[in-house]
Amino acid sequence: MKIIVEGLDIKDAIATVGRIATTRNVNPILEGIKLTAKDGVLTLSATDLEIYVQKKIRADVKQEGEIIVPGRLFSDYLRKLDASQVSIASDGESVVITHGDNVCKFQCLPVEEFPDIIQLDAKPHFSIKSEDFRDLIAKTTICASTDDSRPVLRGVLCEIAKDTLTAVALDGFRLARIEKTISSHLGETKVIIPARSLDEVKKLCGEENGEVNIIIQNKFFQVNVAGTTFASRLIEGEFINYRQIIPSSFVSDVVVERSAFENAVERAGLLVRSDKVNLVTLKIADKFVTVTSNNEIGKINERVPSNLSGKDLSISFNAKYLFDALRNIQAGFIKLSLTGDHSPAIITSAKDGDFLFLILPVRMS
Amino acid sequence: MKIIVEGLDIKDAIATVGRIATTRNVNPILEGIKLTAKDGVLTLSATDLEIYVQKKIRADVKQEGEIIVPGRLFSDYLRKLDASQVSIASDGESVVITHGDNVCKFQCLPVEEFPDIIQLDAKPHFSIKSEDFRDLIAKTTICASTDDSRPVLRGVLCEIAKDTLTAVALDGFRLARIEKTISSHLGETKVIIPARSLDEVKKLCGEENGEVNIIIQNKFFQVNVAGTTFASRLIEGEFINYRQIIPSSFVSDVVVERSAFENAVERAGLLVRSDKVNLVTLKIADKFVTVTSNNEIGKINERVPSNLSGKDLSISFNAKYLFDALRNIQAGFIKLSLTGDHSPAIITSAKDGDFLFLILPVRMS
Repeated sequence: MKIIVEGLDIKDAIATVGRIATTRNVNPILEGIKLTAKDGVLTLSATDLEIYVQKKIRADVKQEGEIIVPGRLFSDYLRKLDASQVSIASDGESVVITHGDNVCKFQCLPVEEFPDIIQLDAKPHFSIKSEDFRDLIAKTTICASTDDSRPVLRGVLCEIAKDTLTAVALDGFRLARIEKTISSHLGETKVIIPARSLDEVKKLCGEENGEVNIIIQNKFFQVNVAGTTFASRLIEGEFINYRQIIPSSFVSDVVVERSAFENAVERAGLLVRSDKVNLVTLKIADKFVTVTSNNEIGKINERVPSNLSGKDLSISFNAKYLFDALRNIQAGFIKLSLTGDHSPAIITSAKDGDFLFLILPVRMS
Repeated sequence: MKIIVEGLDIKDAIATVGRIATTRNVNPILEGIKLTAKDGVLTLSATDLEIYVQKKIRADVKQEGEIIVPGRLFSDYLRKLDASQVSIASDGESVVITHGDNVCKFQCLPVEEFPDIIQLDAKPHFSIKSEDFRDLIAKTTICASTDDSRPVLRGVLCEIAKDTLTAVALDGFRLARIEKTISSHLGETKVIIPARSLDEVKKLCGEENGEVNIIIQNKFFQVNVAGTTFASRLIEGEFINYRQIIPSSFVSDVVVERSAFENAVERAGLLVRSDKVNLVTLKIADKFVTVTSNNEIGKINERVPSNLSGKDLSISFNAKYLFDALRNIQAGFIKLSLTGDHSPAIITSAKDGDFLFLILPVRMS
């Protein structure tokens, strides 16, 4: 293999591909980046066997070929270059990177051990506005579980029905649901996408506008963004029947200013952040929601003006879950809908909104 | 005690004082911040028994008194406030912080267990421009040892003679020396100031211009910056006789562009960063300095244009030490002065400069 590439192109490519390759892995071949030079194009690929990422850049291909380079070293070295043109040449055993008068040579990894990169060539199953997709990811992945004991909870359920994508994540303590309009789809379906893969897709989308086309095929999903093909294994299994968890009738609705409430919860949470449960209690009454926390160190009492319809009540939450929900909402005012002192609470925008957070209260002994 | 203070004033004060108090400490009283209210002033104090810091802010003192509050909780709580006025009241047992409709109460720590805060009232021993002092600290503290086995090496030697402050730090592998003009002094002296204390003083100085007045008295040094009194214990003992370490005649002088050389050393260092010694070799010849590294993974070869007077030679260094020196120099071109393949090298500005870095080579087996 022998190619010449633009310094900026290859730096941009490793910024995307390198993140997947350089994850510390039990299998050293997965720390490699595959370089494939053919037909005026250099393709960089990496995988951790859950995520498969591939990016193509223009290259002056003097000699075709494919090699596996050590991912972290290759990425870090190229990131530090200020050269406009970089030459990459390899006999398969080692790779030589030349820029100006400088030469860097390292051992390649065995190309035959590198796994095949998944790449779906089906028609997109649906399309969604890039900003809607980012918003959907930000609101759901925070509620996905990080615990491996129930693999489906590490994912986000994506349900397509009519012209709507409904995304749901839950971890046994809280749930997020968000609905977005999609512009075309090939039929109703349900898939569970790993939360981690969605967080990577969000980084890939950056601040771009436009549409994201999503392919779903053979236990994989794939998006193509800015010259990058990003595929991820889907999580197999049956998701929790979340509909039966979300209550539909409430004893009290209370409207509060979001940022004032978020700050009050954050401050009250400070006192109990080292406690086993970060317990804060909300006393909901006509003109104020009072957020309190207390332990042997002290007591915090924060009042936020509110507007109640329904009965007064008192309910306790893990401050972290409440804070996570509040800081991921863009609305000026939120509505907290309550079903009782010891039963789930729902947070939505006070105006119409496309999302819903559900939080289970902590039962006080 | 009962006082009312401005939100911005107290936030600013805890940003300075809180950093010393919230250091995790074996003695819980040292995690406290002392509040003293008297004569229209609130004084906040903290210490870790090496550094003593004290800041005064205006306060509406309704009732005088002094209390110890838990440092981290107090700091974090106040940092999150957006109130313009904060009331702080205490009966000595607990402290109550009120802002708007909100109340926070926590247990105080026992005031009698809090150590006396060192505060020197002597005349300043010398004065130095704030920007010179920051530059001196930045260049020397990186070379101080972090190892406790020789306490003097954890400090920076500050020697005052004539109108010059000479600061020196060394850790057995490298040495930094910098000289700054001082504007007045009470006599020649030598003290060893802990590098950590100097780094804290540098943060305190921020971007301010003007003069810093330094008091030296009874095994302590003290600066007063922006309403803050900062005292630190000096390190006792005899510093290494550094003068005999610094060579004065050289076999070769080579001049290179600093940033190109820094980048070359950084890139060559990447390959060997996980090795036991981060070894890079410089081949010094007429038109180029060649920076190389190599191990079983690969080989990096970087060429930097140079201007040599003297003989060609080859010398190896720990890449980290070389990089640390180069990135702390503001000069466009640096001069590397060499005494041989296996003896100390000196880095200075190619033009006149007030600093010198010395690095010991690594002997190749």
